[in-house]
Amino acid sequence: MSAEAPLNPTAAPSRPKNIVIMIGDGMGPSYTSAYRYYKDNPDTEEIEQTVFDRLLVGMASTYPARVSGYVTDSAAAATALSTGVKSYNGAIGVDVNKRPIPTLLERAKKLGLSTGVAVTCQVNHATPAAFLSHDENRRNYDAIAASYINTDADLILGGGEKYFPTPLREQFAAKGYQVLTDFAALDSVTQPKVLGLFADVQLPWSMDEPDAHKLSKMTTKALELLSNNPQGFVLMVEGSQIDWAGHDNDVAAAMGELDEFAHSIEIVEQFIRSHPDTLVVVTADHNTGGMSVGANGKYEWHPEVLRQLKASPDAMAANALGEEQWRDTLATSLGFSIDDELYEKLSRARMQGKKALSEAIKHEIDARTNTGWTTGGHTGVDVQVFAAGPGSELFIGNQDNTDIANKIISLLPKPKKEAK
Amino acid sequence: MSAEAPLNPTAAPSRPKNIVIMIGDGMGPSYTSAYRYYKDNPDTEEIEQTVFDRLLVGMASTYPARVSGYVTDSAAAATALSTGVKSYNGAIGVDVNKRPIPTLLERAKKLGLSTGVAVTCQVNHATPAAFLSHDENRRNYDAIAASYINTDADLILGGGEKYFPTPLREQFAAKGYQVLTDFAALDSVTQPKVLGLFADVQLPWSMDEPDAHKLSKMTTKALELLSNNPQGFVLMVEGSQIDWAGHDNDVAAAMGELDEFAHSIEIVEQFIRSHPDTLVVVTADHNTGGMSVGANGKYEWHPEVLRQLKASPDAMAANALGEEQWRDTLATSLGFSIDDELYEKLSRARMQGKKALSEAIKHEIDARTNTGWTTGGHTGVDVQVFAAGPGSELFIGNQDNTDIANKIISLLPKPKKEAK
Ligand SMILES: [Zn+2]
Ligand SMILES: [Zn+2]
Repeated sequence: MSAEAPLNPTAAPSRPKNIVIMIGDGMGPSYTSAYRYYKDNPDTEEIEQTVFDRLLVGMASTYPARVSGYVTDSAAAATALSTGVKSYNGAIGVDVNKRPIPTLLERAKKLGLSTGVAVTCQVNHATPAAFLSHDENRRNYDAIAASYINTDADLILGGGEKYFPTPLREQFAAKGYQVLTDFAALDSVTQPKVLGLFADVQLPWSMDEPDAHKLSKMTTKALELLSNNPQGFVLMVEGSQIDWAGHDNDVAAAMGELDEFAHSIEIVEQFIRSHPDTLVVVTADHNTGGMSVGANGKYEWHPEVLRQLKASPDAMAANALGEEQWRDTLATSLGFSIDDELYEKLSRARMQGKKALSEAIKHEIDARTNTGWTTGGHTGVDVQVFAAGPGSELFIGNQDNTDIANKIISLLPKPKKEAK
Repeated sequence: MSAEAPLNPTAAPSRPKNIVIMIGDGMGPSYTSAYRYYKDNPDTEEIEQTVFDRLLVGMASTYPARVSGYVTDSAAAATALSTGVKSYNGAIGVDVNKRPIPTLLERAKKLGLSTGVAVTCQVNHATPAAFLSHDENRRNYDAIAASYINTDADLILGGGEKYFPTPLREQFAAKGYQVLTDFAALDSVTQPKVLGLFADVQLPWSMDEPDAHKLSKMTTKALELLSNNPQGFVLMVEGSQIDWAGHDNDVAAAMGELDEFAHSIEIVEQFIRSHPDTLVVVTADHNTGGMSVGANGKYEWHPEVLRQLKASPDAMAANALGEEQWRDTLATSLGFSIDDELYEKLSRARMQGKKALSEAIKHEIDARTNTGWTTGGHTGVDVQVFAAGPGSELFIGNQDNTDIANKIISLLPKPKKEAK
């Protein structure tokens, strides 16, 4: 089982020892195209490839079980990706009859592999929940958090401190978990198990802490800790807030989240170079926002506007609300001057509060970049599938999201007759 | 050179004898996803695969030469796909310095292969023009039409009668072309060369002549006539008006055009079964309209509305303008009843004329299907690449549109030192 054998789809794939599944929540095809142009160096003639370009192998349909129509939510999609079974929107690791279905991480754990999740939302949000647990309703946040005590997962990293009250944390500690809330403390951890809750709910927008690289750091640490297990591991990494930026129709935050997610994929790519027995599969659970690269009849998109921004629209709005002399500070954060007409518009929005001002800033960014949106929800376009490492050739072409899970499950080691 | 050898990307690909490149103009990823759900039989549990699902192998970036930014027009995109060279928006088979670049069809012709185009727009529109000819501006329709006399192409099938005045047609006849304007006459043609001009400008919307299957029939005839050449052939087939439906933000017409384009691909798929030495590569030149499957915050898309329609919004509007008692006729065409509120809305639009009424009908269809749009122009999202036959494994993964051309060109036979 040499992972260095050349890829050959007609031969039986070699089986990976380690599997990393990475989910860009809401990351439909227009996000990765936009990201390429956002990252483009305009001083060179060519347009540089991104990690998504390097790793693309196919696409996947995302529709939920028929009862929920053609457009999925994150719960049904994550359930499909973790169990191989379609379910209704809202389902966490259960089928249409609300029966629990074994998840990829549960199967791996049973086979003696280590398991972990690293996400930028609260750890009990839909996607990680559907990989770790079972609940008939994604909104049962407290029950989902409490259920994690039974997962035996080696790493649970993300946000969501408020869903883990002290008694629950004590239960985790009693089970041998290090319970961390200080992100810097993660660095010195040398072995599982770890429950890391690095924000009350979700982590801050990546673009508001540009040097933090939290998802990249959690990914690095997860690879380091999980690879202690000679049997191998399964790790799920999610760029959770690409979706949230999409719901907010915030192209700036979306590019920031995508950039951090891309860095995390590159870390896994690098890990595969030194650990060629590792498979990575990257996909999205669905598309969010109906974002388009170009809008309003104009054949233009202007990512240079995004490259100048110094903060997210949310952070700029919060900042401007706390200042009397906000015009210049905001202009500096935006990277362009605020003329009188725009100042009038922003002033009116500012009087209505932070949300309205953030909306007004986003509208201005949309107008200058020429970005379009059709919804604050999800859409049914197919998403991309990216892969590298042994078994990656299985993901070439079109497939359903349940096929992705079933292919990954087929690559897990076969159950041993006798335990060692 | 057995075409039945199993596909193996690591081995040198076998070289196809015949190459069919098929372009869904404007057919971004949301179109083929929407089409799957439009074609879904709601009485079965599963969602049936489409020809696009069967043939997907990768995706392609579509950006034009840097001078035109990140969002391409059809001319620059077709130039990239036919020559392997990026150019400015508006360029027809010329580079950024307006120098003509040899096109795929010209290269094939020089090598002794037969060549043809079959499209649903006027034959001198941007996409076919960039495969057949060279002009610094796509809008030079008359010059482009006149230039076709020098292409030596074996088949030129589509619309555009008005661009070929009698003296030009006589020139074609003198060169041995059968010049047809009656679509039915195509059936009895038994050999090239053929100039078929089956509409004054573009062909009618497919959904307005549901049994005509004109693109499918042109494709069938082209395969039959071109395969007379023992050296092989290169054929370009375009579903031209998917793009036009996108520009019009007309999801109904888009699904109709996509359906006819899918039928045409299936005909080529069938041809490959009996002629396994044939490669087909299907792609889009760019995305149009920013269409989204779901919109307005709702996780829903309702293709059943589209399945009920008996005519295109344009045809319904034209019809309703010619009738006093239009309410019932229009309701029948729409497949749903017109309540008083909708009747008020449509009446007001009808008084403003055909275009306004067609718009109002489209808005109602968008509302009922929950379809979103961001533009009447193009967007920069990557497009899909589909392929089958010898050499198809070259198109796996991400690539640029110029790579598609260069890969196809690399599969042409090598020039012979001496003619037979
Ligand atoms: Zn979402
Ligand atoms: Zn167009």
